Amino acid sequence: MNNASPALSTVPHLTTALTGPLLRLETQLLQAQVAIEAWFREQFRATPAPIYCSVDLRNAGFKLAPVDTNLFPAGFNNLGERFLPLCVQAMQTAIERVCPRSCGVLLVPESHTRNLFYLENVAVLRRILESAGYEVRIGSLLPDLAEPQTVSLPSGARLRLEPIERQGDRVGVAGFNPCFVLLNNDLSGGRPAILEGISQPVVPPMALGWTQRRKSEHFRHYHDVAREFGARIDLDPWFIDPYFRQCGEVDFMAGTGEDCLAGNLDVLLTSIRRKYDEYGIDREPFVIIKADAGSYGMGVMTARSVDDVRDLNRKERKRMAASKEGQAVRQVIMQEGVYTFETVGDPPAVAEPVVYMIDQHVVGGFYRVHTGRGADENLNAPGMHFEPLAFVEPCNTPDCGQAPDAAPNRFYAYGVVARLALLAAAREMAAHG
Amino acid sequence: MNNASPALSTVPHLTTALTGPLLRLETQLLQAQVAIEAWFREQFRATPAPIYCSVDLRNAGFKLAPVDTNLFPAGFNNLGERFLPLCVQAMQTAIERVCPRSCGVLLVPESHTRNLFYLENVAVLRRILESAGYEVRIGSLLPDLAEPQTVSLPSGARLRLEPIERQGDRVGVAGFNPCFVLLNNDLSGGRPAILEGISQPVVPPMALGWTQRRKSEHFRHYHDVAREFGARIDLDPWFIDPYFRQCGEVDFMAGTGEDCLAGNLDVLLTSIRRKYDEYGIDREPFVIIKADAGSYGMGVMTARSVDDVRDLNRKERKRMAASKEGQAVRQVIMQEGVYTFETVGDPPAVAEPVVYMIDQHVVGGFYRVHTGRGADENLNAPGMHFEPLAFVEPCNTPDCGQAPDAAPNRFYAYGVVARLALLAAAREMAAHG
Repeated sequence: MNNASPALSTVPHLTTALTGPLLRLETQLLQAQVAIEAWFREQFRATPAPIYCSVDLRNAGFKLAPVDTNLFPAGFNNLGERFLPLCVQAMQTAIERVCPRSCGVLLVPESHTRNLFYLENVAVLRRILESAGYEVRIGSLLPDLAEPQTVSLPSGARLRLEPIERQGDRVGVAGFNPCFVLLNNDLSGGRPAILEGISQPVVPPMALGWTQRRKSEHFRHYHDVAREFGARIDLDPWFIDPYFRQCGEVDFMAGTGEDCLAGNLDVLLTSIRRKYDEYGIDREPFVIIKADAGSYGMGVMTARSVDDVRDLNRKERKRMAASKEGQAVRQVIMQEGVYTFETVGDPPAVAEPVVYMIDQHVVGGFYRVHTGRGADENLNAPGMHFEPLAFVEPCNTPDCGQAPDAAPNRFYAYGVVARLALLAAAREMAAHG
Repeated sequence: MNNASPALSTVPHLTTALTGPLLRLETQLLQAQVAIEAWFREQFRATPAPIYCSVDLRNAGFKLAPVDTNLFPAGFNNLGERFLPLCVQAMQTAIERVCPRSCGVLLVPESHTRNLFYLENVAVLRRILESAGYEVRIGSLLPDLAEPQTVSLPSGARLRLEPIERQGDRVGVAGFNPCFVLLNNDLSGGRPAILEGISQPVVPPMALGWTQRRKSEHFRHYHDVAREFGARIDLDPWFIDPYFRQCGEVDFMAGTGEDCLAGNLDVLLTSIRRKYDEYGIDREPFVIIKADAGSYGMGVMTARSVDDVRDLNRKERKRMAASKEGQAVRQVIMQEGVYTFETVGDPPAVAEPVVYMIDQHVVGGFYRVHTGRGADENLNAPGMHFEPLAFVEPCNTPDCGQAPDAAPNRFYAYGVVARLALLAAAREMAAHG
């Protein structure tokens, strides 16, 4: 597993004068901890959590909010060795619910066989499942994989990718009949026919892949969750909820849908400015425009005024029109930009927390640390190099004896907001049956 | 929480030439890991685990066995800070089952207000429960506690002990109506009347206190568990199961019951010697004689021949006749002695592993390190000072890429044997309704 370099082994600093409201938020979350945990228990009893999930957070000091919720988390290798036991224990509880008598798991990863970082993630995920007491085989969707292929990784792990075989309504690999399929593939490339209509559970369900899932639907659920949560602990939900709007049909190359973009952008910027005024925040509002379906941060732009979507040059249009595995962007989500005021190192590099959950438990996290990006840019962008910085503490041990922004309490706040996004994902999953 | 001193922060060495069979055992447990975990899942589904439990193990190199199973574990402060998150996560799962809608826990500790080590344990237990999201108040059984009393601990924690109040069939403390009572009191002093017949669950149930519980009953269940487990993975259960015999009525002061002791001792020594011969173990068999009810290792002796129980002098008789809170020893269990060949430091000090579990999960452990004891003596004895040495790794992340006696794998073996004892305790609990 990845170990952060010594120079980075610290907790990022929140470099803003505007920590007041976040300290207030952290204090409020700490004080309401018993009520919050009881509420989460009740919520996840009503709507079970997905088997795993990672949430990208942005911490502006005055606001702490999720900006992306990934149901096929691909960075388990960034968590650090010390979180492995928490992952194992949570995985045992999670699988017990999916498949009480299961022993065998077919892990179906992405088909990026040249992305060694991703494959290290698969190796760690396999190790978690094996430590939890399951037999794991890796079923690859690589179209031209006729026989098992072994990949050696920099960590020393070896992955054996095997062609998935289907017999009737069951899938497996040679000599292995698994109890369920664990998807670690976000289905950007479409729903694989070989997994359609099988009798084994596919977890998370294929309907949550990017073939069908929409960020706007997630954030609609999140908006409800934030509202209910805010009412419960008497908090303006805006402190944890980014505004968003959706445009149905946009073709950046052809320039169609630009009016929808410009109109929604204006509405969003005005709403954000109103909130900034209400709380005396002296910052310029901005909006992130990205594909409503899809991952990997392709086709993401920052807009600060309506002109920004009117004046796209050819290169920018082309960048926005492309997405993972070549899907053209058609539906677009515009989301309130949340500044990232956490930095680490000298010169300061922007750090964005990513929280990992298995079942309803927070099991760890890391910071994406970027040296070349600003506080108002998306940090999960194509071709971007980031340094993972594993959290120094887990997110489930708040300590009221320490300051509200002490590491365990900051991490607790991350864990609360991340679980709100997890609950939104749970509702998304329930809505898809 | 206790942090092991740097000099002790190592994994104990197994200082015996007889590691062969244990390496074999560890190898076998590793190889059968998937089958073992599936079996535990099935067993704990049929018979739910007690909420918590600690198990004292002895590691002879050729044999790894539990010698004591404590249902009111009193050393959470010895686990080390890094195990806290695992404890919190497991406690959440455990309480969810006991009291799904609970927010309030009444923690009822032992009444040793001058034992600061014990009170640090209570403070850590409270922190685990609070981090898990529960409101915790400490209800004391101290007979003369008329109003709340606050104790300051060396760690800096403060404990507020409050008198338990009963209204009708519910108990609580002033202004606090808990959902359940968490007992951390082994009831050596009897069942407290104030907790009899209340409508809230008492966890673990009072029937498992030392007022009623018998070690021999536990080890009868353990014997069955070891036999079933041995059959499952093709292992002679003797490698994990200590022989034992029971004497119903012994009065050491009066000398009655001596024939029963001598007779059973002879049977035991003969059976052990036969096993030693079978496996070529060149050691002298020994037997531990202790109270069948009770804890704290009072009244424990080592016997190597029948003469040892015939020749007790007055001082030895007196020591054997006394037990915790002055209960006279009447029923006696005689248990195959298991050598402890794990040592740490220079000069080597004997180290005995203690494994902690919450629900069905191993959450950590420590070594009791004694400088003044031999490999064939009980390490949990009255007035004995021990250094706790927190495990360096949790017990749930075996690593097949390493040697079978590498730390994660040694700890995995501990975790398996400890969970067998946990399962025996679960069956004990089920038998008491």
